[in-house]
Amino acid sequence: MKRIGILTSGGDSQGMNAAVRAIARSAMSAGLEAYGINYGFKGLVEGNIFKMNSKELDGIINRGGTILYSARFPEFAQEEVQLQGIEQLKKFGIDALVVIGGDGSYHGAEKLTKHGYNSIGVPGTIDNDIPGTDFTIGFDSAVNVATEALDRINDTATSHQRTFVVEVMGRGAGDIALWAGIAAGADAIVIPERDYDIEAIANKIKENRKNGKDHALIVIAEGVMSAQEFKEKLDQYGDFDSRAVTLAHIQRGGVPTAKDRVLASRLGDYAVRLLLEGKGGLAIGIHDNKLVATDIIDTLENHKHKTDVSLLDLNDRLRF
Amino acid sequence: MKRIGILTSGGDSQGMNAAVRAIARSAMSAGLEAYGINYGFKGLVEGNIFKMNSKELDGIINRGGTILYSARFPEFAQEEVQLQGIEQLKKFGIDALVVIGGDGSYHGAEKLTKHGYNSIGVPGTIDNDIPGTDFTIGFDSAVNVATEALDRINDTATSHQRTFVVEVMGRGAGDIALWAGIAAGADAIVIPERDYDIEAIANKIKENRKNGKDHALIVIAEGVMSAQEFKEKLDQYGDFDSRAVTLAHIQRGGVPTAKDRVLASRLGDYAVRLLLEGKGGLAIGIHDNKLVATDIIDTLENHKHKTDVSLLDLNDRLRF
Amino acid sequence: MKRIGILTSGGDSQGMNAAVRAIARSAMSAGLEAYGINYGFKGLVEGNIFKMNSKELDGIINRGGTILYSARFPEFAQEEVQLQGIEQLKKFGIDALVVIGGDGSYHGAEKLTKHGYNSIGVPGTIDNDIPGTDFTIGFDSAVNVATEALDRINDTATSHQRTFVVEVMGRGAGDIALWAGIAAGADAIVIPERDYDIEAIANKIKENRKNGKDHALIVIAEGVMSAQEFKEKLDQYGDFDSRAVTLAHIQRGGVPTAKDRVLASRLGDYAVRLLLEGKGGLAIGIHDNKLVATDIIDTLENHKHKTDVSLLDLNDRLRF
Amino acid sequence: MKRIGILTSGGDSQGMNAAVRAIARSAMSAGLEAYGINYGFKGLVEGNIFKMNSKELDGIINRGGTILYSARFPEFAQEEVQLQGIEQLKKFGIDALVVIGGDGSYHGAEKLTKHGYNSIGVPGTIDNDIPGTDFTIGFDSAVNVATEALDRINDTATSHQRTFVVEVMGRGAGDIALWAGIAAGADAIVIPERDYDIEAIANKIKENRKNGKDHALIVIAEGVMSAQEFKEKLDQYGDFDSRAVTLAHIQRGGVPTAKDRVLASRLGDYAVRLLLEGKGGLAIGIHDNKLVATDIIDTLENHKHKTDVSLLDLNDRLRF
Repeated sequence: MKRIGILTSGGDSQGMNAAVRAIARSAMSAGLEAYGINYGFKGLVEGNIFKMNSKELDGIINRGGTILYSARFPEFAQEEVQLQGIEQLKKFGIDALVVIGGDGSYHGAEKLTKHGYNSIGVPGTIDNDIPGTDFTIGFDSAVNVATEALDRINDTATSHQRTFVVEVMGRGAGDIALWAGIAAGADAIVIPERDYDIEAIANKIKENRKNGKDHALIVIAEGVMSAQEFKEKLDQYGDFDSRAVTLAHIQRGGVPTAKDRVLASRLGDYAVRLLLEGKGGLAIGIHDNKLVATDIIDTLENHKHKTDVSLLDLNDRLRF
Repeated sequence: MKRIGILTSGGDSQGMNAAVRAIARSAMSAGLEAYGINYGFKGLVEGNIFKMNSKELDGIINRGGTILYSARFPEFAQEEVQLQGIEQLKKFGIDALVVIGGDGSYHGAEKLTKHGYNSIGVPGTIDNDIPGTDFTIGFDSAVNVATEALDRINDTATSHQRTFVVEVMGRGAGDIALWAGIAAGADAIVIPERDYDIEAIANKIKENRKNGKDHALIVIAEGVMSAQEFKEKLDQYGDFDSRAVTLAHIQRGGVPTAKDRVLASRLGDYAVRLLLEGKGGLAIGIHDNKLVATDIIDTLENHKHKTDVSLLDLNDRLRF
Repeated sequence: MKRIGILTSGGDSQGMNAAVRAIARSAMSAGLEAYGINYGFKGLVEGNIFKMNSKELDGIINRGGTILYSARFPEFAQEEVQLQGIEQLKKFGIDALVVIGGDGSYHGAEKLTKHGYNSIGVPGTIDNDIPGTDFTIGFDSAVNVATEALDRINDTATSHQRTFVVEVMGRGAGDIALWAGIAAGADAIVIPERDYDIEAIANKIKENRKNGKDHALIVIAEGVMSAQEFKEKLDQYGDFDSRAVTLAHIQRGGVPTAKDRVLASRLGDYAVRLLLEGKGGLAIGIHDNKLVATDIIDTLENHKHKTDVSLLDLNDRLRF
Repeated sequence: MKRIGILTSGGDSQGMNAAVRAIARSAMSAGLEAYGINYGFKGLVEGNIFKMNSKELDGIINRGGTILYSARFPEFAQEEVQLQGIEQLKKFGIDALVVIGGDGSYHGAEKLTKHGYNSIGVPGTIDNDIPGTDFTIGFDSAVNVATEALDRINDTATSHQRTFVVEVMGRGAGDIALWAGIAAGADAIVIPERDYDIEAIANKIKENRKNGKDHALIVIAEGVMSAQEFKEKLDQYGDFDSRAVTLAHIQRGGVPTAKDRVLASRLGDYAVRLLLEGKGGLAIGIHDNKLVATDIIDTLENHKHKTDVSLLDLNDRLRF
C-alpha cells in the first residue's frame, strides 16, 4: 500500500479535522502518501482530490468544521456512481479510503467495501448514534456546548421563575439530551429511547413549586418533537411561564474538546495501522476504552447504537 | 441617609449581580445599610425586603442571572400600587432606591421619582437600548455569546457551503446584531434602524459564489423579523441551501465579561456616591468613558438610544 | 441506615460539588438524611457538621471548588485523632461516610474502614492518579483547561517562531500532560512514566525548522521537573528562542466539563446505592465505562494507577 | 495611491488578524491592492512581501496570533536599515505602510515617517500602554483571559482558605491588573502607577479573616515585581497559606473578544480611509468612542498612556 485517501461526509462535527490530521500524519509517519478528497463522496466521484502535506495540517487539530468540506450526495446510492468513485481512486493510485462521518457516510464506505475496495469508517458525528463505538468524535464537544447553553438558560429560568423547554440535537439518539441534561441538572429529560409522561413532568414542576423551587429545565432531543411542540403540550397542564428554545446549529462547530481531539487522534491513527496490516472493510470505534474494529457490513446491518437509558433513572434520583 | 434599597427588574442580564454587589458594598463602605428587594417591583410592593451583608456578596460578581430575582409586574403602572411600594420603603426605613434594569424598570424608577422618592436607574439589559448611556450592563456579554455562536455556525456554513440566517436578541435596537455581526465577519446585518434590501443581499451571495466564497452568514435582529421569516423571503431569490437559527435565551445568562463586570462595578458605586451627595431622580450611565447622570424623567421622555448605523457601512467594506 | 456524611478533602477539583450534590440528593431520594462535613477530616474531628437540604444543592452542579471546603490535616494520621472523628460521626448519628478526594483522602477513608466504620472513597482529583478507576472527577476539566491554555500559547509560538515549555499539574502521574499534549498537538510530551531524551527533542525541533516548522510546544508534567528547569536544559542544545510557562492553579477551579459532571453524578449516586446495600470500605470508580467498587484497603495497598504510555508513541506518529 | 503594505510587529495580541483583515479588505474595497509583509520590520527589510487576496482573509477574524508573523529586529534602529526597508517598499510599489503593534512597532513607523514615508500606527498590544488611544487591540481579550483565570483561582482560594498572589502581564502599565482585578473582585491590586503598602494589604487580609472571609486574591502587574517576590514579602507579615501564580503567555493568544474584533475592524478601516485622504505619519486610536488620529512623532515623544488609577479606589470600596 502506498496511498490512502481521506474524506469527510455528512454533518460536520467538532474533531473531524483532528481525525483528518491523525490519519494523514500517521500515514506519512509510516511512509505512505495521504490524499485529501474534498466535498465527501461528491468530490470523490468528481475527482476533487489532492495530495496532502504535513505542514498544512499544522494548527488544524483545534479547528471546527472540516477542511475537506462535506456535501450532500444522494446519488452515491447508485451502483454506477459508486463505481465512478472507485475509478477515481484507481486513477489517483489510492489504495484505501478512510471515511469520517456518520450513518450515511458509513453506508458509502460499506458500498465501496462491497465492491471490494478497502475502506474504513471513522465515527464522526455529534449524535453518538453509530454502531460499533461507545463514543463518536464530536459527541463530547456537542454535549459541552449544550451544557454551557443550558447553564446560561438556567440563570434566566432561576431569575424569572420560568420553565424552559430546550431542544438539543439528536434525531436518532437521545445521547446529547441525556448527557447535557444530567450535566445541567435538568428537571426532566425527554429522549426517543423512552416514552415520556408529560403529566408526570407537569406534576413534578408543580410539586417543586410547593417545595420552594419555582423554575424548571426540560431538555428534549429533536428526535422526539420540537421544543415548541412540547411546550404547547406542557402548557395544557398548567401555567409554568414556559419558554421554548432550540439550540440548533451552535452544537456542531467550534473548538473540539480535549477528549474529542484525543479520540480523533487515536481513531485516525488506528485506521491507518489497520490498513497497514492489510485490513479493511471495517468500522472502527472505542469500546470500553479500547480501540475496536468490526466488519462494516455486519455492523451496519446487524447492530444498533444503544443509549444508556439507566441514566434517566439516575437523573430522577438527583433532581430536586 | 442611612439605608438604600436595591432591586433588579425586567429581563435579566449578565453583570446584574456585579451591579448589586457594587451598590451594596459601596453603600456599606460609606457606612450605610443596604437592603435587597426580591422579585423587582412586585417584591417591593409585597415587602419582600431583607438586609444584605457583605459576606453574601462574596463570589457573586461572576454569576449570571440576578440573586434578587426579577418578575413581571404590570400592576406597577397604577399610581396606587406605586404608593404601596413607597409605603414599604418607608416601613423599612429605606431612604433611596437603586433600580437595575431596562426600559420598563426605568419607568418604575421614574414613577417613584415623580412621587418625590429618591430613585436612581442603573442600565442593566443586554439590548443596549437605554437612553442616557453608551453601553448597558450585559450588552458586551451578550455580544460575546452571540459572536461565539456565530463562529460555531460559520464552521458549519463553511464546511457545508450553506447560508445561515441567525436571529439575535434586540427588539428595539440592532446593537447586538451589529456588533456580533461585525465581530463574526457576517455577510449581511439586518437591523431595525435601517431598511434592508433582500434582493441586494441575495445578489451579494450569488456574486460571492462566483468569486469563490460559497457560504454566507446573515445576522438579523429579532426586532426586524424572525430568522425563519427572513430565510423564507431570501429563498425566493435563489437556492442558497439556507438555514434559520434563533439564538434566543442563551444570550442573557452565564458569566459576564470583564468589561460588564467593571462597568457594573463603576455604575453601582456611582449610584451610591450620587445618593450620598443628596442627588436622586437620575438615570446613570457611561458616556465617552465618563460616568454621567441625567434627569430620569427628561431622559426617558425626551431621549432615545442611538445605534451607530455607520457600522453597517463599515461591515460592507470589510466583508468578502 | 439513616444518615450519611459527606466530606471533601485534599486539593479541590472541578466536579466535586457535582459529586456532593449527587451523594446528598441520591441519599435523600432513598429516604436518608445527608450531613455535610466542612473542611475535610479537620472539620470531622471538630464536629463542623450540618444537615443538608435539597434546595441548597440547586445550582451547584456547575460550580468550581467545593462548598464543603477542604483543609490540610496531617494530624489525621494519628489513631487517636481518627477515633475522635468516629466519635463525632456517632454523636451526629451518621451511619456511613463518603469521602471525595485524592490519595490522601482515600487514606483517611481507609483508616476509618480499618476501625470498622463504613466508608467509601470517591475519586476527586485533577491528577487522575487514583487506583481503582480509569478516570477521576476533575481530570477531564483540568485537561480541557490545560489544552485551551496550550492552544493560546501555540498562537504566540507560531507568530513568534518560539519554543514553549509548558508545565502542567501532575505530581505522581503524567496523565494531564499526556492528554493535553496530544490534544494541543505538542511536539514533545515529558512525563514521569517514561524517561525523556532531551537531545532527541532538541534534534527534532532543529529538524522541524529545516522542514518549515519554526515553532515548538513541549508539555511537561510537574512531577518530572519545572518548566524553567527543562527550558534551561534544552537551551544547552541550541537557541530555540525558548520560554517557560507554568499553568499552575488555573487547572483546578472553574466550571467542570459535562463529562466530569456526569461522572460525578454517577459515582456519587453509586456510593449511596452501595451503602444502601450494606456495603462499605470501598473505593469506587469507573472502569471500562462501568461503575466498579473495590476494597479500599486492598486498592490502596496493592494497586497503582496506570498511565497509558502508548499515547506517547501515538503523539510521535502524529506530530509534524 | 495604489498599494498599501501591512505588517505586524512586537508581541502578538488577540485581534491582530482582525486588524490585518480590516486593513486589507478596506483597501480592496477602495480599489487598492494590499500587500502583506511577513515577520515585521525584519521581513520588510528582507523583502518578504506578498500580494494579499480577499479569500485568504476569510475566517481569520477570530484567530489568535498574527498570520503575518512577528519577529524581533533591533537592527531597525539603524538608519541604513530603515532605508533598506523603504527601498523594498518602493521596489514593490507600495505607497503607504500600516504597522500594527505596540510601542516598538510605533517607533519603527515613526522612523519611516521621519524619512518621509507615509506610515500609520495601529495600536495592537495587550498591555494598553500606547499613547493616542484609550484602548489597544488585544487589551479586552487579555483582561478576559486573566479574569477567567482569576475566577478559577478564586474557587481554589475559597475552598482551601488560601491567599493567592497572581501576576498578570503589563510591564509598563497596570491596566490588565486593574481591570481583571476589579472584574474578579480582588482584595488588592498592585500596579506600577501607585505605591503599594504591603503591610496594609496584610492587615486587610487579617481583618477579613476575623470578619469571616478567610481567603484572599491579590493581583499584581509584572511591572511591579514577580508574584513570587510579592508572596515572599507578604509572608513576612503573617501566615496566609499563600501561593504565587504567574499567568504568563496564556494572556496573549487565543480567540479575540467581540470588542477587540470590532475595535480592530474600525481602526483598520480608519487607517485606510486616512491614507486615501492623503494623510500619513499618524498614530490612530479610539478616544471617547471616536476614532482619532494624532501625529505619530508628537504622540510618541510628548504623550504617555494614562492609567485610570481612580479604579484602585473603586476596588477598595467594593471589596469585602
